[in-house]
Amino acid sequence: MTALTDQEYMQLALEIASAPNGRTWPNPMVGAVVVNEGRIVGMGAHLKAGEPHAEVHALNMAGGAARGGTIYVTLEPCSHHGRTPPCADRVIESGVSRVVIAMLDPNPLVAGRGADRIRRAGIKVEIGVLEEESRRMNQVWITSITRQRPFVWMKAAMTLDGKIATGTGDSKWITSEAARHEVHRMRDLTDAILVGIGTVLADDPYLTTRLPEGGRNPVRVILDSRLRVPETAHVLDQAAPTIVACGQDADPDKINRLRNRGIEIVTVRLQDGKVDLNELMNELHKRQITLLLVEGGGEVHGAFLEAQLIDKVTMFVAPKLIGGTGPSPIGGSGFSRMGDAVELQNMSVEMFGSDLSITGYPLWR
Amino acid sequence: MTALTDQEYMQLALEIASAPNGRTWPNPMVGAVVVNEGRIVGMGAHLKAGEPHAEVHALNMAGGAARGGTIYVTLEPCSHHGRTPPCADRVIESGVSRVVIAMLDPNPLVAGRGADRIRRAGIKVEIGVLEEESRRMNQVWITSITRQRPFVWMKAAMTLDGKIATGTGDSKWITSEAARHEVHRMRDLTDAILVGIGTVLADDPYLTTRLPEGGRNPVRVILDSRLRVPETAHVLDQAAPTIVACGQDADPDKINRLRNRGIEIVTVRLQDGKVDLNELMNELHKRQITLLLVEGGGEVHGAFLEAQLIDKVTMFVAPKLIGGTGPSPIGGSGFSRMGDAVELQNMSVEMFGSDLSITGYPLWR
Repeated sequence: MTALTDQEYMQLALEIASAPNGRTWPNPMVGAVVVNEGRIVGMGAHLKAGEPHAEVHALNMAGGAARGGTIYVTLEPCSHHGRTPPCADRVIESGVSRVVIAMLDPNPLVAGRGADRIRRAGIKVEIGVLEEESRRMNQVWITSITRQRPFVWMKAAMTLDGKIATGTGDSKWITSEAARHEVHRMRDLTDAILVGIGTVLADDPYLTTRLPEGGRNPVRVILDSRLRVPETAHVLDQAAPTIVACGQDADPDKINRLRNRGIEIVTVRLQDGKVDLNELMNELHKRQITLLLVEGGGEVHGAFLEAQLIDKVTMFVAPKLIGGTGPSPIGGSGFSRMGDAVELQNMSVEMFGSDLSITGYPLWR
Repeated sequence: MTALTDQEYMQLALEIASAPNGRTWPNPMVGAVVVNEGRIVGMGAHLKAGEPHAEVHALNMAGGAARGGTIYVTLEPCSHHGRTPPCADRVIESGVSRVVIAMLDPNPLVAGRGADRIRRAGIKVEIGVLEEESRRMNQVWITSITRQRPFVWMKAAMTLDGKIATGTGDSKWITSEAARHEVHRMRDLTDAILVGIGTVLADDPYLTTRLPEGGRNPVRVILDSRLRVPETAHVLDQAAPTIVACGQDADPDKINRLRNRGIEIVTVRLQDGKVDLNELMNELHKRQITLLLVEGGGEVHGAFLEAQLIDKVTMFVAPKLIGGTGPSPIGGSGFSRMGDAVELQNMSVEMFGSDLSITGYPLWR
């Protein structure tokens, strides 16, 4: 067997790491591969909070074969005692002679400490192999650590002529069944889903995850500055927890009635009559919501755009023309100069049935 | 060499046929391949009106080797004396024992006659191999023959949130240089380009083909019901012929002044104050315009949608978010029920720089 390159071993570590598909919260996804004389002798991933870290699994598997070898790890080994002992120490004890790290810990308070500890033990440390890929894999966790708010994933569906509904408001259905199935797969991956009261009043959606194979329901978050949510709305049912964000002057009787039914009411500052999104994001962060799927409508998306609170966008585009004056996926006040438009990076395109899904990552300057 | 299938030989004939890239007007693009005992013995394409047809080139190349063989031809051989003698006779004389045809002549007055003539000579005839692909290749010519109007190709460019301009009308630039270069390649392929007077007043475009390697300028067609075009507009310059379509009650003095400059003024019926597009298409057909590129804006596109005069759509989608209330690619009155939206078929996606281009073909029912 030919020895692989550092990039190839790290790519393998990333693939192993991503197996739990985001379910390692509050920990990141991490993978490790131990190589000695061109042979893989250990592999491991962190699967669940409270269980061993990736390095420990990989080094346990390698046993004595780690000595003199190299460990590839997608995230800097930790240097502190948490629910498990510091991985940096375990790496040092293993006898490896080289440690290759994709990215440092994103927490500025501890970044570099694990690597330093290993280096001071006389072990060669290299940092930055497939760093971008590792950041992308843990983008939700990194946002939570560094921004103290959820990673915001905006999703909308439009016709090829740019509309999320007809001029009279009809939006059923823009996309094919295959694309709608994918939306439920997205919901299954998220901690919470957010819509505006306009969507609740217009469509009375459930906002649950409906997949043939089951799936998790996200927490439902409703932007409802004036607390207009009908008490019979489907989003207030027992299928999943619901958070309604409204202004501080909302009707206290209605607040009490909803709270008595187990609905969480978060009262936040209003800005121009609308919920302050930064404050709400903070509240969601406190509730351990790390990945928030924003499903519109257009006014809500416009508010997130203005607040620069979009980390990822997925736009489904249906092969249909509707014409007329129907709303576009992002409203609000918008930018007046095309040169000020927010650019998206790392674009990717997939097909779901007859629909395209276009995904990109806004570059905020 | 292993013998290929009928589909593979016909695919080769289609590839040979499409080499002139639409420049065979008023004739279609046609390709032919002659095969004998699993060996290709002749190939030919129709390159230019007045020159030999594809079958003749291929049979000349094959010579005596055609005898007992099979000819694959992408369009039914003609049975009439035009500028060249009937190809059906040439096929019969060649001694081939089998003729495989992708599609019959689309002109209902002659469809099937060439095939019948060959069949009556005792030669086996098969029709329909890669018929759809052959129709697609000659879609412009077929539309001209069967509909007596140009093939209408609508092009627009929008942000990923569905807008062709900001709320204040800024549209420079939505797409990247690579995508704009592709638009000039599209112009180079077309007979004419159409915009509304709104675009002329807002942007004062030239509507010429600007490619480093040169390129043909299309005829410029301006929808201008009230003849508001400024006499200093760039579209009235000498770079290419210009047709201005206006209502019959437009200012006769201005009409005369423009005509004296060589601008063609076509006066047509107005419907709700707008140029009747069916009548205009008829006028363009009379002027041998077979491929019309419609470059908007949104109101013009809406009028074409309502008139069911869209044969192909290419939408450039830039990886940008602009928010707000800017116009969408197709305006007009539109459909009120999503179920009435016009579906697109044969979707394809390409990348130009950072932009996507999405192309589809409306299915009019």
